[in-house]
Amino acid sequence: MKLYEALAQEIEDMVAQQVLRPGERLPSVRQQHARRGASPSTVFQAYYLLEARGVIESRPRSGYYVAPGRAPTAAPEPEPSRPDGAPRSVDVSELVFGVLEAARSRRVVPFGSAFPSPELFPLPKLARALASSTRRLDPWSTVADLGAGNGELRRQIALRYQLDGAAVAADDIVVTNGALEALNLCLQAVARPGDTVLVESPSFYAALQALERLELKAVEVATHPREGMELGALAAALERHRPAACWLMTSFQNPLGSLMAPDKKQALVGLLAAHGVPLIEDDVYGELYFGARRPALAKRYDAPGAQGLVLHCSSFSKCLAPGFRVGWAAPGRYARAVERLKLTTSLAAAMPSQLALAEYLGQGGYDRHLRQLRAALMGQQAQMLAALAEHFPPGTRVTHPEGGYFLWVVLPEGADALALHAAALERGISIAPGPMFSAKREFRNCLRLNYGHPWSTEHAAAIATLGELIRG
Amino acid sequence: MKLYEALAQEIEDMVAQQVLRPGERLPSVRQQHARRGASPSTVFQAYYLLEARGVIESRPRSGYYVAPGRAPTAAPEPEPSRPDGAPRSVDVSELVFGVLEAARSRRVVPFGSAFPSPELFPLPKLARALASSTRRLDPWSTVADLGAGNGELRRQIALRYQLDGAAVAADDIVVTNGALEALNLCLQAVARPGDTVLVESPSFYAALQALERLELKAVEVATHPREGMELGALAAALERHRPAACWLMTSFQNPLGSLMAPDKKQALVGLLAAHGVPLIEDDVYGELYFGARRPALAKRYDAPGAQGLVLHCSSFSKCLAPGFRVGWAAPGRYARAVERLKLTTSLAAAMPSQLALAEYLGQGGYDRHLRQLRAALMGQQAQMLAALAEHFPPGTRVTHPEGGYFLWVVLPEGADALALHAAALERGISIAPGPMFSAKREFRNCLRLNYGHPWSTEHAAAIATLGELIRG
Repeated sequence: MKLYEALAQEIEDMVAQQVLRPGERLPSVRQQHARRGASPSTVFQAYYLLEARGVIESRPRSGYYVAPGRAPTAAPEPEPSRPDGAPRSVDVSELVFGVLEAARSRRVVPFGSAFPSPELFPLPKLARALASSTRRLDPWSTVADLGAGNGELRRQIALRYQLDGAAVAADDIVVTNGALEALNLCLQAVARPGDTVLVESPSFYAALQALERLELKAVEVATHPREGMELGALAAALERHRPAACWLMTSFQNPLGSLMAPDKKQALVGLLAAHGVPLIEDDVYGELYFGARRPALAKRYDAPGAQGLVLHCSSFSKCLAPGFRVGWAAPGRYARAVERLKLTTSLAAAMPSQLALAEYLGQGGYDRHLRQLRAALMGQQAQMLAALAEHFPPGTRVTHPEGGYFLWVVLPEGADALALHAAALERGISIAPGPMFSAKREFRNCLRLNYGHPWSTEHAAAIATLGELIRG
Repeated sequence: MKLYEALAQEIEDMVAQQVLRPGERLPSVRQQHARRGASPSTVFQAYYLLEARGVIESRPRSGYYVAPGRAPTAAPEPEPSRPDGAPRSVDVSELVFGVLEAARSRRVVPFGSAFPSPELFPLPKLARALASSTRRLDPWSTVADLGAGNGELRRQIALRYQLDGAAVAADDIVVTNGALEALNLCLQAVARPGDTVLVESPSFYAALQALERLELKAVEVATHPREGMELGALAAALERHRPAACWLMTSFQNPLGSLMAPDKKQALVGLLAAHGVPLIEDDVYGELYFGARRPALAKRYDAPGAQGLVLHCSSFSKCLAPGFRVGWAAPGRYARAVERLKLTTSLAAAMPSQLALAEYLGQGGYDRHLRQLRAALMGQQAQMLAALAEHFPPGTRVTHPEGGYFLWVVLPEGADALALHAAALERGISIAPGPMFSAKREFRNCLRLNYGHPWSTEHAAAIATLGELIRG
């Protein structure tokens, strides 16, 4: 247990024992530092964690307070998945399109949405970056930057890789039309129709749809809701299926929110390299961590000895500029192949979006924005967890992810998330039912909830309504 | 022969007979109208046509003059192609990538480029539209417009279809990441790996690359350099191959510049409908006509009785905003399928680009810009044709397209365009060698030249250099 986790546990115990009572003010960071000798960052992390758990809450310009009302009785964590491991053609699109279409109206409470609230993004600053960068647009850049993308933007992305300990040259980055295109291009670079791809269980539906469209087979691998894909199950699947690739989200997986520990990521890269199997690492949520620092990238362990087999994909769509449609791939040894696929499928990403993001990143406000965004998401997670604890029936299990903006909820056996989806929509609430996340349409009693929107009384009421619908 | 064509012929004859001498001023439009009774639009069209042919030239604020120097001795037109009609797997990518890469430097004379000069586009006005539309950006539009694209932009595009006589509802338009993505999505909507697709001969290399990537087979159909694909050959190929689709450019085909007459387009749509074969109509050059009005769309003849089998694709990349990467498809009965493919391959086109174009189109300056662009391209075509007539060896054949910005040059037998490409590049000149445009790598003695850039002494010298290299 880390220092901040120990401190958080200590305070949570004090709350449970009523040493600290609801509404009471916690010692300030300065006090914890001066008296106890804890470093400010340890205290901040402990308080953030407690806020995420709903134990305490922050009040602007005042400090941290024990959350009012009841002590949180957090629901227990779900069990790891146990898929049967058979290769399957994928056919989830009809279900997915139906759910997404339903969730698109802005009058619906967006628990089923795949995006955080656009209100959490620095839109005015991005608009200024768009205007100024386009005014200075070199007409010839539209030709020179075809294929791999704008040079300055790729340089800015390479700088962030360097800070994250992964050596990626700007020339080996391909800017794409969002991470979804990056995923599609990477899959095409390493797999042919009929091939098998290993995925998590549950898995992000858009990846399943990409497999479906490319006529690839999915093998779902057992996945722990907090720790990610189980390497023992992965090793067995590698032996059994000789897959063309493994696709997974190493940090804050969608829908589970699971986070692989750094040594597990290293072992993952080593295991796949030993089998010569490329890893497509989808890392779009990696910046949305609630801990002290950004989770390691599996790409970091893709040393030259590991053969350049990690194709790292990410984007700005979840953490900065959703409508700009700018993502990228750092495809290792497949960089040229992915660049050529980009040229033949859509030529280039939109230049105004690329130039504006390059300018925005060069101005240096990105990390400040990310800190604000993470703090907002942590607080919203705490609010939703507390509401679930209050309104969902006993026997419900819920993840407590350390980042991202999704909760995975396992309802008691017999619950039907598809029926709940339909009933909730009639009450103006969207959810993402579990079968969207499985080639076999499993997880019938599960749902994914989005806490990426500022909490409101409407949201609280919607959780209560869902609870009523579940209880029937 | 139309009135303006007759008038143009009359004047061209006068020049050939030295009735009008080089440098002499032509009667003004007002004079032609007042004395001869010709309508101003007829006179303008005749003069435009003569300018395109290099017979006359315009001088700003002064009028039209007979071109100086020699009377143009236009090279004869190439013969129709006679491909063998066998289905072929496509493998042109290495060649194409090599040529495109070489042409990318701005220090190279861009005769091999696929784009007109970005200097011909209204970049400052687009930058202002970007800035103002993004300032007013509704954060929720980034979610609401996923998939098919921004509603206002689709409405503006639908308005233009209406003016062109094609009934396309805004809801049936899918905005894409350029016309290349539109083509890819349409191909995926109608064909499966292993299927056969009919294409022109020669054919646009990016379409051949798309077939290659999607593991489709190409059957090249005989194509007339001025009138487009030959319907007799098409009918035979339909009987013989039972193709999944026919892909072609009905107006100013790349690389030939061929233009199908309206009744031929109507017959084309009827013929394909009779076989139940979808037509993917790539129309990215349709706005770049030199005649009196926009060429008809084949889509126009896709009446409800014709089953909605025409998938019309276009973009703003060739005529307004190349780097914005905004194209679209109007896929008829396949609209929903294409929309879903868009959702699963790249989610949406970039929102800033879409909003800026919607605003620009709403302001009403697009048609004025297009008129200026067409006039520039016509003049540049005339300059290049004249230079070719002067410097290329006897026996050279050249197209005289009525729109677009490509010439197709057929060199005397035995000439080697690939060797010419390599030699020209060493002299700082790019060309697009003929084998890029054929699954069978035919057209070894052909090249495509781009006249989409303002003519300069450097360009004139480059044509002379090419002539020297060809003569050896």
